[in-house]
Amino acid sequence: MSISELIDLASSNDKNAKSKVALAKLISIVERGGEGARQLGRAIFAKTGNAYVVGITGSPGSGKSTLTDKLITSARVDSRVCVLAIDPTSPFSGGAILGDRVRMNDHVDDDRVYIRSMATRGHLGGLSYSVPEVIRLVDAAGFGLIIVETVGVGQVEVEIAGAADTTVVVVNPGWGDSVQANKAGLMEIADIFVINKADRPNAKETMRDIQSMLDLGIRNDAWRPPIINTIATNGDGIDELYKSICQHGDFVRSTNELVERRNKRDKEDLIRVLKRSLEDIISQGWEDPSIAQLKKRCLDHELDPYSASEQIIKQLFSVSERKT
Amino acid sequence: MSISELIDLASSNDKNAKSKVALAKLISIVERGGEGARQLGRAIFAKTGNAYVVGITGSPGSGKSTLTDKLITSARVDSRVCVLAIDPTSPFSGGAILGDRVRMNDHVDDDRVYIRSMATRGHLGGLSYSVPEVIRLVDAAGFGLIIVETVGVGQVEVEIAGAADTTVVVVNPGWGDSVQANKAGLMEIADIFVINKADRPNAKETMRDIQSMLDLGIRNDAWRPPIINTIATNGDGIDELYKSICQHGDFVRSTNELVERRNKRDKEDLIRVLKRSLEDIISQGWEDPSIAQLKKRCLDHELDPYSASEQIIKQLFSVSERKT
Repeated sequence: MSISELIDLASSNDKNAKSKVALAKLISIVERGGEGARQLGRAIFAKTGNAYVVGITGSPGSGKSTLTDKLITSARVDSRVCVLAIDPTSPFSGGAILGDRVRMNDHVDDDRVYIRSMATRGHLGGLSYSVPEVIRLVDAAGFGLIIVETVGVGQVEVEIAGAADTTVVVVNPGWGDSVQANKAGLMEIADIFVINKADRPNAKETMRDIQSMLDLGIRNDAWRPPIINTIATNGDGIDELYKSICQHGDFVRSTNELVERRNKRDKEDLIRVLKRSLEDIISQGWEDPSIAQLKKRCLDHELDPYSASEQIIKQLFSVSERKT
Repeated sequence: MSISELIDLASSNDKNAKSKVALAKLISIVERGGEGARQLGRAIFAKTGNAYVVGITGSPGSGKSTLTDKLITSARVDSRVCVLAIDPTSPFSGGAILGDRVRMNDHVDDDRVYIRSMATRGHLGGLSYSVPEVIRLVDAAGFGLIIVETVGVGQVEVEIAGAADTTVVVVNPGWGDSVQANKAGLMEIADIFVINKADRPNAKETMRDIQSMLDLGIRNDAWRPPIINTIATNGDGIDELYKSICQHGDFVRSTNELVERRNKRDKEDLIRVLKRSLEDIISQGWEDPSIAQLKKRCLDHELDPYSASEQIIKQLFSVSERKT
């Protein structure tokens, strides 16, 4: 099946799950990278820009997945919902740290809901550039709401969530200890705070703690992030959370904020696509005999890495021109 | 003062602190990047390969800095010691998360000891490529031991510490909760475990916990990481730790391990230098009128990012050739 047929099928909202299979195939094309991903990116570009993107981040065990699961139930009434669950990748094994996600199973057969796990790590030791491209793809396929769920431990994961139209930060009572190093970072990206497991001790102290950090004015715009108590396991507070997300959506649309956020995202996207293209050129040429020899001389300490990389760049770009 | 004069002065082990000032200037050149850094890298390359690199990593608050401070006292007898304290950078403010390090002050006036803080973040939103280059610089300046201290929370920080000749992982009694997500990663890189604050409750359980993880055989080579109890604040266990580091050094030298580790490091270095060179080319050309126009068309959604980046690459490499 051609890419454009797959795109049509993925956008079709087909009742017998063929559309989800098509979407899964397209996502795999994006994740593989290279010319296939670029071709796909070009093909869908004109259809993008309609989805609303919500980032949800928080520590491992804060209950993000359960919360997202319940949120789907509220949101699916208004639009088709896609959840991208981003797992940090182990820098060593290359596998996802959190393993398979066996949650959010309520929605597997729902043709208005698509859920996908993705790892953060890409090839050549770099971080995956796929997440923003998959967001664009799902956007083009006609999903009105895209929820990107990340574990707010690493810089990359927080960045991904922070690039959303609305960012929800999930904490638990007594959060102070577990996210110490990241607290300021989380305060900077949060449009909405959720205190999940709000029936546990210290929920009130946590509320006061966040309030007083907000009073310090780390953020300085017209929107003061609301703080919502939830108990995701029984659904308490989920409606209020969904309402808050919609309110924040109205806010960013009514000001220049949405345009600015998306502009910033587009700029970062361009740099990312550019770097990815350069890495593809490196990967393609990496085993060429002339480059292999430069690498060997560098590893034998006959040539310093600066001179080696200068010569490799000259080789690579003539190689890539010849190949194109 | 020219780069080669600065290198001579930095290597001179001068008693009146001029050599430290020269080294600090050279490190700033590396951190600024661009042609200056490349020139410096070429100039020092032949002098590198003599220093032994020890990585020390652990959670915030595990007592790494105090431990490093005491370790300096043991190690400085055998060789000049350089400590690079790597701080994770806030993805938002751009500043270091941990702020200034006001520890290890005992050694400020010691001409055999040089201590420097570095942030992980570089330009263009990417991670700093400077750390390995600063290691090479300090190596060329004649320091026999380089201790790279990182907070083992993020992928990057763990990677930096894992690239050492000997990697020390510092935990505290009851470590299981604080490093849950990273445990497997830490097990993979540790050549030596330190249980610091070993006078606290649960030290024995932590020892058993690590032993049983080691029994699972995540690592599978001839070296079984020793587990050392320390109380860094009063110096307990530090001599044993230093002895262990020396023993591990003898082990990697007597097998092929040191050669393999350094080969792997050299390969990664080459890729890093290569990427940095490419980013420098991007930075230099980023504001050129022809490229600014491509960017604008992309942000106005007249051009998809794939086509834009393809055209930008063509422009950039002709631009950079003309400039060279």
